[in-house]
Amino acid sequence: MLKSDGAHDHHEDGSRQLLKEYVRRNVDFGDPELDAFCEPFSQRTVARNAFLLKAGQVCRFEGFVTRGYFRLYAEDPRGREKVLYFAGPDWWVTDIDSFTNQVTAQLSIQALECSELLVISKTDKERLYAAIPKVEKLFRIMTQKTLVALQRRLIGTHSLSAEERYLLFFSDYPEIARRLTNVHIASYLGVTPEFVSKIRRKLATRR
Amino acid sequence: MLKSDGAHDHHEDGSRQLLKEYVRRNVDFGDPELDAFCEPFSQRTVARNAFLLKAGQVCRFEGFVTRGYFRLYAEDPRGREKVLYFAGPDWWVTDIDSFTNQVTAQLSIQALECSELLVISKTDKERLYAAIPKVEKLFRIMTQKTLVALQRRLIGTHSLSAEERYLLFFSDYPEIARRLTNVHIASYLGVTPEFVSKIRRKLATRR
Repeated sequence: MLKSDGAHDHHEDGSRQLLKEYVRRNVDFGDPELDAFCEPFSQRTVARNAFLLKAGQVCRFEGFVTRGYFRLYAEDPRGREKVLYFAGPDWWVTDIDSFTNQVTAQLSIQALECSELLVISKTDKERLYAAIPKVEKLFRIMTQKTLVALQRRLIGTHSLSAEERYLLFFSDYPEIARRLTNVHIASYLGVTPEFVSKIRRKLATRR
Repeated sequence: MLKSDGAHDHHEDGSRQLLKEYVRRNVDFGDPELDAFCEPFSQRTVARNAFLLKAGQVCRFEGFVTRGYFRLYAEDPRGREKVLYFAGPDWWVTDIDSFTNQVTAQLSIQALECSELLVISKTDKERLYAAIPKVEKLFRIMTQKTLVALQRRLIGTHSLSAEERYLLFFSDYPEIARRLTNVHIASYLGVTPEFVSKIRRKLATRR
């Protein structure tokens, strides 16, 4: 699978390379462990605006983004969306609650441009934990980072003004933020799109 | 340390027993591993309303609650408090961001009644990871559960009405909720204490 002349497989080689580099930055894996770790992942391409997961389904995958970006959001009964976070290359995407407990997902995951990721099933992930104990450390660290990000998000929503949240968002997501519409930024910040335009105008006049 | 006639140490034995039971429910530890795991924890007692951590300090501990309960909250610049969660026996308390990255804590942790916990330092925790690889699994699972709880909290804050959040809170925290004042419940739900009284009256008339 890793040696091929096909364009698609060259592509997939590149994705696996990104995953390997991610793993190496976090844990001390030898080459055989790295190959064994990557083996059960399969490549998926998601078209712009298509859904990787819709609220109400059960989330059967955990995915490592290699290209493009996704938004992970919840919808209230009135259809108002709240973006929990955006995920670009090097980020993991799943509904952790649904994937772990195999319950109905409350999150939807949508690609905001044509995107690619490497996905693993729950069964394969459990097999990895059993076969390579160091995988525990990898996901302990990854889950801890996600928890830190979510805690900052919860505190920021409470403690910062909309303008401060906007500035923090651009420093947290420099690559993604520039490509987003005001509507998506608004549903992350918890304000109206008009309010985002207002902040943008205000900040522009300061420069 | 584990064999003593002193009242305090009997007490501490009980605490360690709770920690051991928690560990056994989550991972497959043998008795020597269990003892080695518990060894670096030390017992702390926190008086009612006293602080285990104040925002602005660096959090040097992770703690396993064995008695009483705590509230973990953030304060905005105007002094309004937002409770992220309450933690009773069998829960872990720390500012994960501050403890992991050794940065200034944004959370404060306050005991709501005379409480006890077993605490471990960052250095000792790192030593446990190195000495007993299964500790990775224990904290991977624990962190995952905390992440699920925080994700539910973020989604609930967005998607549910104050009354629904109130009812969910009582089903999530049956033991703790009954002992809390309206002020604490309000700062968890993100409403005023008057609004909590109103919900309580409304629900009482339905019974």
